[in-house]
Amino acid sequence: MSTIKERQGLIADQAGKMGMKVYQPATTGKNTTPRQELQHENGKVVTLEEAIKKSGLKDGMTISFHHHFRGGDKVANMVVAKLAEMGFKNLHIAASSLIDVHEPLIEHIKNGVITKISTSGLRGKLANEISHGLMENPVVFRSHGGRGSAIANGDLHIDVAFLGASSCDPMGNALGFSRSENAKSICGSLGYALPDAQYADKVVILTDDLVPYPNTPNAISERNVDFVGEVESVGDSSKISSGAIRDTKNPRDILLAQQATKVVLNGGYFKNGFSIQTGSGGASLAVVKYIRQSMIDQDIKASFALGGITAHMVKMHEEGLIGRLIDVQSFDKVAAESLKNDPMHKEVSANEYASADEPGSATHMLDMVILSALEVDVNFNVNVLVGSDGIIRGAIGGHPDTAADSALSIIVCPLLRGRIPCVVDEVTTLITPGNTVDVVVTEYGIAVNPNRPELKERLEKAGLNIVDIHSLKERANSIIGTPAALPFGDKVVGVVMNRDGSVMDVIKNITE
Amino acid sequence: MSTIKERQGLIADQAGKMGMKVYQPATTGKNTTPRQELQHENGKVVTLEEAIKKSGLKDGMTISFHHHFRGGDKVANMVVAKLAEMGFKNLHIAASSLIDVHEPLIEHIKNGVITKISTSGLRGKLANEISHGLMENPVVFRSHGGRGSAIANGDLHIDVAFLGASSCDPMGNALGFSRSENAKSICGSLGYALPDAQYADKVVILTDDLVPYPNTPNAISERNVDFVGEVESVGDSSKISSGAIRDTKNPRDILLAQQATKVVLNGGYFKNGFSIQTGSGGASLAVVKYIRQSMIDQDIKASFALGGITAHMVKMHEEGLIGRLIDVQSFDKVAAESLKNDPMHKEVSANEYASADEPGSATHMLDMVILSALEVDVNFNVNVLVGSDGIIRGAIGGHPDTAADSALSIIVCPLLRGRIPCVVDEVTTLITPGNTVDVVVTEYGIAVNPNRPELKERLEKAGLNIVDIHSLKERANSIIGTPAALPFGDKVVGVVMNRDGSVMDVIKNITE
Repeated sequence: MSTIKERQGLIADQAGKMGMKVYQPATTGKNTTPRQELQHENGKVVTLEEAIKKSGLKDGMTISFHHHFRGGDKVANMVVAKLAEMGFKNLHIAASSLIDVHEPLIEHIKNGVITKISTSGLRGKLANEISHGLMENPVVFRSHGGRGSAIANGDLHIDVAFLGASSCDPMGNALGFSRSENAKSICGSLGYALPDAQYADKVVILTDDLVPYPNTPNAISERNVDFVGEVESVGDSSKISSGAIRDTKNPRDILLAQQATKVVLNGGYFKNGFSIQTGSGGASLAVVKYIRQSMIDQDIKASFALGGITAHMVKMHEEGLIGRLIDVQSFDKVAAESLKNDPMHKEVSANEYASADEPGSATHMLDMVILSALEVDVNFNVNVLVGSDGIIRGAIGGHPDTAADSALSIIVCPLLRGRIPCVVDEVTTLITPGNTVDVVVTEYGIAVNPNRPELKERLEKAGLNIVDIHSLKERANSIIGTPAALPFGDKVVGVVMNRDGSVMDVIKNITE
Repeated sequence: MSTIKERQGLIADQAGKMGMKVYQPATTGKNTTPRQELQHENGKVVTLEEAIKKSGLKDGMTISFHHHFRGGDKVANMVVAKLAEMGFKNLHIAASSLIDVHEPLIEHIKNGVITKISTSGLRGKLANEISHGLMENPVVFRSHGGRGSAIANGDLHIDVAFLGASSCDPMGNALGFSRSENAKSICGSLGYALPDAQYADKVVILTDDLVPYPNTPNAISERNVDFVGEVESVGDSSKISSGAIRDTKNPRDILLAQQATKVVLNGGYFKNGFSIQTGSGGASLAVVKYIRQSMIDQDIKASFALGGITAHMVKMHEEGLIGRLIDVQSFDKVAAESLKNDPMHKEVSANEYASADEPGSATHMLDMVILSALEVDVNFNVNVLVGSDGIIRGAIGGHPDTAADSALSIIVCPLLRGRIPCVVDEVTTLITPGNTVDVVVTEYGIAVNPNRPELKERLEKAGLNIVDIHSLKERANSIIGTPAALPFGDKVVGVVMNRDGSVMDVIKNITE
């Protein structure tokens, strides 16, 4: 007979050889609380104020937000108002993007609560004031993929992330939708919040639907969540397709979309198994709708649609025309509902979507992307951030990421917007380098990057109106005249980071 | 006007302040290859032999396998045969488990190809030979959660993981099922392979269905995959419910299941929102089936079923009786198909399932688990690994993980198996410490751990036949007589690790 007592010597021997300890029986009993009770006793569920206190947030630290509710977002304003009330100063906001709805931040900047901002974009009055020099420190702009990389590699360290979720359980498993009867909101993918959840020192989920464990499958895992706060509302879902991602009825946008569609169909990549992304902006979004009939007629199916997922993409996926949806951001409620219900609709993080240094980022497998622009210049550089009046009015988004990684990047851009030329000698601000831009579609013709002679040949063969980009610029000038120089001041109000983490451009204050 | 040339000084200033570089335009062109072609040119898709060569595998290194195909697994034998052919020696196999089908490893041990094994279990002739002293080094046994922890914290370092997948794309996105028309196999969850995929230095996916990118949603991500090898077959799916996880027709198992069901219903945890897991073994698996009617009658719904997911659980989930399925291992084809199709059926890694040090492991939220045993002793210690003849014939599995983390652990164990007593003075090998075991159900009565007087009271109140565990042991002895001492030798053939990484017991060789 061999008893465990007799084996203790051998056990100790083996432990020694392996460099491990000898097992010691537990001295405390099991936790016998029913888990429906235990999940509420774990201490994660607190008020927003308690979460802030317990997070260890201090003056000067970095907090973060996601913008998946877009115009309907309520979290950033709510949290910053609470932080102001609690007396915090000198905070750095690292948002995935900021838009019109974040206008109340102006007061908090003036009061010294916020002294630094990192974001993909700025719009509305907040953008206007910052363009005029509101802040001491320049705003740091990054692409979505660039932000993911910066968070992952430590360039952008987040102390406390405040992440809105449409459902969350008491352990912290969170989603951009809810499967419960009490669902109040839906934003779909939480892709831009996932790097924050993974890398922030502390993570606070704010939710308007606290559901029982397990809220799985989940987007954000409890392993990354420190606190869960229940709030009245995290966002107004009716506004997730607001702003830049409305379905267009503008005739010029429709014309641009039709021209871009011809480039898609004839550029050499419209083959069975192709993949496609459309950026925000009416013309680019509409292209997917316009290629549908050609896909049916030619029996061509897409392997996947990427990025901002739209109702059009969902429809074509359900029809069998698009194999998979890979979703970093749901551009409308139909897309958000599809993410909830469709096992072939995948949620990805900003990194898995578009980071240059992420081995599995989906943009690397992207054939075609159709993107908007505020300005394009004769070197094919694109600006999507700063208006031709020098005022910040946009967002980098995934623009440079997808342009660089796709096989064919197509920019749709009107030659003129009112009295403003959009094809120019040099972009006001460099956002997407020209060597990554393949085609520029305007209502006066299509310019192909000289780096892509084979592409130009294919499009000419298809009878498209291919023009030199300089001629587009000259045409704009001949209609409008050469625009006057912008009244920039000497203060740097913005810094544009390339997706590789280098500094690519600066934005100066505007004095008018 | 401000040109980018004029801004270079400011750009350099900002870069300096931020400690970042100044952007340098790329000197190489875009990759313009259509992505349907590019995905095949990425160099990941190779033969098994090329994968082995390119992986940098050397004599003395550690390789790993998963056992999701159970009796149908073809990968471990195929890879080790190839390694033997290529002349490798002195390898350490770190499998999630090894079973009867891995009998061919005996020859490779004899030939010095394999000199170390880590696993959850061993069965069949391989187990028998190892029990008799086949190997120089003892086999290291870990629980599923313990293996996950050991891989994550570096105690178990894997040089090259060889992971079978029922589908994989050329980038490495892999699944335990396939959505293509060419699907050859299905095993469902790849939960035990996920720590290997995440932490191994090199990861080789072997698949019998190489599908186009993107094979998403995916279990294993391309970011973790180095090579993809296409093979004739990775496993025989008809055998995934073989061995320990057949649906029982054994009358004694049915009796034990019925008694265990009474414990489940009356133990204090059968409330709306409860959670449950059933381990392998006919009696424990059957309990879910038996509680179904009570759930309907009392309008009680489970929040989730965990672990080895079975067809019974899938059925009750689809009926609305079980809210979610959390699946580390699909115990049959119905479960595997459900994982493929049901958005509420979640795949989890071994760590997310059962690791003690994983903040979000599901076992921590488990109310009840019903588990089998080879032996239970009067201190409620359980042995599921070594037969009462001293020969290894089982697997630790998630036994100690779920017993420790659940609020109520129920062991089903016959008093006798033929002429072998199963309730004994001391277990032959300590696998699950008695302080984590709450109830032992035998056909001669139910013993409750003295640590749980409140539980004993509830079960007595419900009219169950509660007995002292010593009386069960004595009853076994009175029928069979006291068993003779086992003829153990002096060689240590196995080491049992506790889930916390400490050495808990050793297994000596058997001399008969």
